[in-house]
Amino acid sequence: MNEQPESSLPQAGQLPLTGIGVDVHAFGPEGTPLWVAGLHWPGERGLTGHSDGDVVAHAAADALFSAAGIGDLGVHFGTDRPDMAGASGERILSEAAAIVREAGYDVGNISVQLIGNRPKFSPRRQEAATVLSKAAGARVHLSATTTDALGLTGRGEGLAAVATALVVPRG
Amino acid sequence: MNEQPESSLPQAGQLPLTGIGVDVHAFGPEGTPLWVAGLHWPGERGLTGHSDGDVVAHAAADALFSAAGIGDLGVHFGTDRPDMAGASGERILSEAAAIVREAGYDVGNISVQLIGNRPKFSPRRQEAATVLSKAAGARVHLSATTTDALGLTGRGEGLAAVATALVVPRG
Amino acid sequence: MNEQPESSLPQAGQLPLTGIGVDVHAFGPEGTPLWVAGLHWPGERGLTGHSDGDVVAHAAADALFSAAGIGDLGVHFGTDRPDMAGASGERILSEAAAIVREAGYDVGNISVQLIGNRPKFSPRRQEAATVLSKAAGARVHLSATTTDALGLTGRGEGLAAVATALVVPRG
Repeated sequence: MNEQPESSLPQAGQLPLTGIGVDVHAFGPEGTPLWVAGLHWPGERGLTGHSDGDVVAHAAADALFSAAGIGDLGVHFGTDRPDMAGASGERILSEAAAIVREAGYDVGNISVQLIGNRPKFSPRRQEAATVLSKAAGARVHLSATTTDALGLTGRGEGLAAVATALVVPRG
Repeated sequence: MNEQPESSLPQAGQLPLTGIGVDVHAFGPEGTPLWVAGLHWPGERGLTGHSDGDVVAHAAADALFSAAGIGDLGVHFGTDRPDMAGASGERILSEAAAIVREAGYDVGNISVQLIGNRPKFSPRRQEAATVLSKAAGARVHLSATTTDALGLTGRGEGLAAVATALVVPRG
Repeated sequence: MNEQPESSLPQAGQLPLTGIGVDVHAFGPEGTPLWVAGLHWPGERGLTGHSDGDVVAHAAADALFSAAGIGDLGVHFGTDRPDMAGASGERILSEAAAIVREAGYDVGNISVQLIGNRPKFSPRRQEAATVLSKAAGARVHLSATTTDALGLTGRGEGLAAVATALVVPRG
């Protein structure tokens, strides 16, 4: 499933490979529980999605797959994996990291930025980073921002996350 | 055209440099052919643009220029290069990679995520990665996602792509 | 404030860490001065924000914090730092780089893409890169793109920027 590396390039076994992942989910009806960055956020309106809509964990997993060049969430957790329907963000990231390691890559780090008006992220940033770093078996760095009332996140229609990751082919 | 490296920094000749690129194009009128990720997608509505509007190839090229710190598509393929008007995504990425190498950088890898409702990307992901990896002379990793019916891509107004790349200054 | 590194991972002292940052600000009323990428743009309508709304500098600073895993602009320059209210983008990036170095990381490079219709960026790209590279004490690569009249930037509601950065834990 991996693209063939160009054998003359220096990254083989040495240089890291970079990947990127964006995810967006809409807010669900009042009463939907919010799960984001591997945590439950009591009192906050949740996101829609086949899974729990955890945009931070999904962007992180997609950035990992992207860095390794082995597809994306849809490829790995689509119809072939009915057991992953409704999976938590923590589990999705854990499985993604396992697939990437199985494919021959060590995980360097993953960094994810949550984009949206709510929840107020900074008080639980480190708690979330601990949960997701444990799931990934690697450093997961988290941050958050808003979009000045503009765009889908600024209008409060949903949450977005953008992630980048580095992986290294194993010697 | 390149910014001066800080001579005391460790990346000179050793650390890779990271770059980023986003591109967005609107869907054109019914009957416009779709070219995205270096491939023609029969039966799908295409994108507008001076070129073929290949958001994946354009984001990839911009991420390469960004990593090398030598500008962007507008700088390199603007009015100075009328021969590039209407160029295919494959050609744009190939030329961008040649310019980056000419400027003294080896290309590590490029990863691009296509964001939009259509086309269904995964069945042709590896075919596209092969075409674009050959164009770039380096690994190009591809993935895709949707935005839960939100934003310009969710409303089906156009397609977006986001890319990251690593390059390394040559010894 | 930093997440604990996984002691068995190879990046400690060797592999770089990657980070990402997005920022968006709305255009203010006619007559608001525009500051973006560390420069004043005479005759252009400016952005709102507690600070000068410099989306390029803010995205760069957030990418740096993200790479080091030590939070974000809100964490560092929020209510604890009233002296940073209204700070210029140049100063915000300079302070962010100092905080990241103090936390034990060398800065590799930062790459930022400005997304929006105005101002025309390429004529002053290198001037801006010089200002921001000096502020960061590291290479800052700049580029720009538009979104084909789509989305918040295409409709001219505001400007966005997306950034990536690499940092390296010191020996």
